[in-house]
This record gives sequence, structure tokens and C-alpha cells, in this order.
Amino acid sequence: MKALVFGADGFEDLELFYPYHRLKEEGITTHIASMKKGPIKGKQGYEIEADVAFKDVNPADYDILVISGGKGPEKMRLDESALEIARHFFKENKPVAAICHGPQVLISAGLIKGRKATCWIGIRDDIIAAGAHYEDKEVVIDGNFVSSRSPADLYAFGREMIKLLE
Amino acid sequence: MKALVFGADGFEDLELFYPYHRLKEEGITTHIASMKKGPIKGKQGYEIEADVAFKDVNPADYDILVISGGKGPEKMRLDESALEIARHFFKENKPVAAICHGPQVLISAGLIKGRKATCWIGIRDDIIAAGAHYEDKEVVIDGNFVSSRSPADLYAFGREMIKLLE
Repeated sequence: MKALVFGADGFEDLELFYPYHRLKEEGITTHIASMKKGPIKGKQGYEIEADVAFKDVNPADYDILVISGGKGPEKMRLDESALEIARHFFKENKPVAAICHGPQVLISAGLIKGRKATCWIGIRDDIIAAGAHYEDKEVVIDGNFVSSRSPADLYAFGREMIKLLE
Repeated sequence: MKALVFGADGFEDLELFYPYHRLKEEGITTHIASMKKGPIKGKQGYEIEADVAFKDVNPADYDILVISGGKGPEKMRLDESALEIARHFFKENKPVAAICHGPQVLISAGLIKGRKATCWIGIRDDIIAAGAHYEDKEVVIDGNFVSSRSPADLYAFGREMIKLLE
């Protein structure tokens, strides 16, 4: 089983590293994707290597997509390949987990309309305007799509993310 | 089931937050203990509230002890109550998980002698001098005691920490 985690400079450190290690804990091969291959740096200063550029990802190779939050999603959403990857996951009804600002990518990909979702409160009105059914909960589950609000929700986000793989 | 996580100012952020959320993910009530109740701040700037001071902990109330790393353990090890809590867990053969600089607390408590353990490489010679059987591995398991080296090992640390509870 393989997992793809979206990250970009300014990522919310815990929101990338928690799901990253959590998936690896399950023995799942986990790759970080970004605008380009190479090191990316989180808001709090942690670094990690992006294994692959969005444009070089074959989304059919992966079983789950995780979109981390922070300042990364405002960059990811401008990369058409990132949006295409997200569209593949929704079209194939494969698991997607997005946290905090992560749903910004789904707005730009046209995927949030009609979906139950949560997000960082600062972009709440954006996902509502884009047609999401917003809920202020630690984790919102809508079929194969789970979302959370912030790092404080990571325990619930991780729990439901792993359930999607069972 | 209840878990106690040791933290103090300068804690390695991921090494505290990963096990904290991971335990909560399992539905385990998880308390942070420090020299005093109130906010503590990690090396990378994350904050969390310490729920309880070491001196007010009844270790019999808890089923697992986690000792986070970073700059916290050099402070924790000077608190006699912290050492007494650690001694309780080893005496009762209850699960203990320590990462990075966490084993410094176990050196001061006189608990590392004769145990298989790993730690941050910068304190390797200290745990060896204190009588540990050091191994350079992502996670070392010695009965109910597991240890890891650094944040990069968190997936393995988390996996073995949870296994101790099964």
C-alpha cells in the first residue's frame, strides 16, 4: 500500500509529520509530493525531503492522499498537476484526508462542492462559498473523505485517516 | 486506560506531540506532566499545557509513561518527583517509552543500568557509562521499555509504544 502526502514550504509542521509517521507506522510506503523534488521547510522550521514533484506523480500508484495545512496549500493550489492528482482520488473514490488549509487545494480543484467538510476557521467562508457543507468538528467524515480543523485535532484526524484504509 | 507524558520547556516538539496524539487516537486519556502545571514551550515554538506537576502525580493512576526529548529532560532529571515516577513504572514493570534525550531521566533515576536502549547519539556515551546496552536502531525493545533516537524514528517509536499496551 502507498500513500501520498502533499506538502510545500510553510507547511504546518505537525500536520505533515503526524500523518507521515502515522502511515509509516502501519507499514505503508509514504511519499511527500510538492511543486518540486527536494527539501521543503515547515512554518516551525522542520525540514523534510519532497520525494517527487506533482507533475511526476502517477496518482494510480497511490492508495490514499493526505493534504497537510499551513501556508503550503496556497502554493499547491496553483500547480495544475496537484489539482489533477486530487481529482483522480475523488473520481476513483479513493481515500483523501485534508487538514486545516488543505481544503484550499480541493476548492481550486473543484472538488469541495456538495461535500461535508471542515477546515481551519480562517478559510471556513471560502469552503462554504465553494459549496461545501461546513461542520465545526474535530473531524468530519464524508465517505472516503475526512477533514480536520487544526493540529489540536490530529488524534481524531489520524484515527479516521487510518480507518479509511481498513 | 491513562497515559503520562513527560515534557518541559525546550521539548522536541514532534517527540512530544506525536506520542501525545497517538495515545489519544487510541482513546487513552493522556496527561502532560512537567515541573509545574501550566504552559510549556517546545524548541520549535509549539506550546501545550502541562496538566499536572510531577509532585502531584500519583503514578499508580497511569498505565504508560512516555518521556519526550529535546532540552526538556535536562530539566526533568533535576526534579526528584519525576525520578520517583519513573522508578514506579520500572518497579511495577509498566510500559515506558523514551526518545532522544528522554533516557537522561532514566540515567538520573538509576534505571538504565543493564537495559537495552537507544537514544540521541549525543548522549550515547552517557547511557553507556550508566550501564545501558546501547544499540543504534530506530527502536530498541527491552521488555516493557522501548526507546528511539530522534524524530525521524517516530513511526517506529509509535508502533512499539502502542504494542506495549496490547
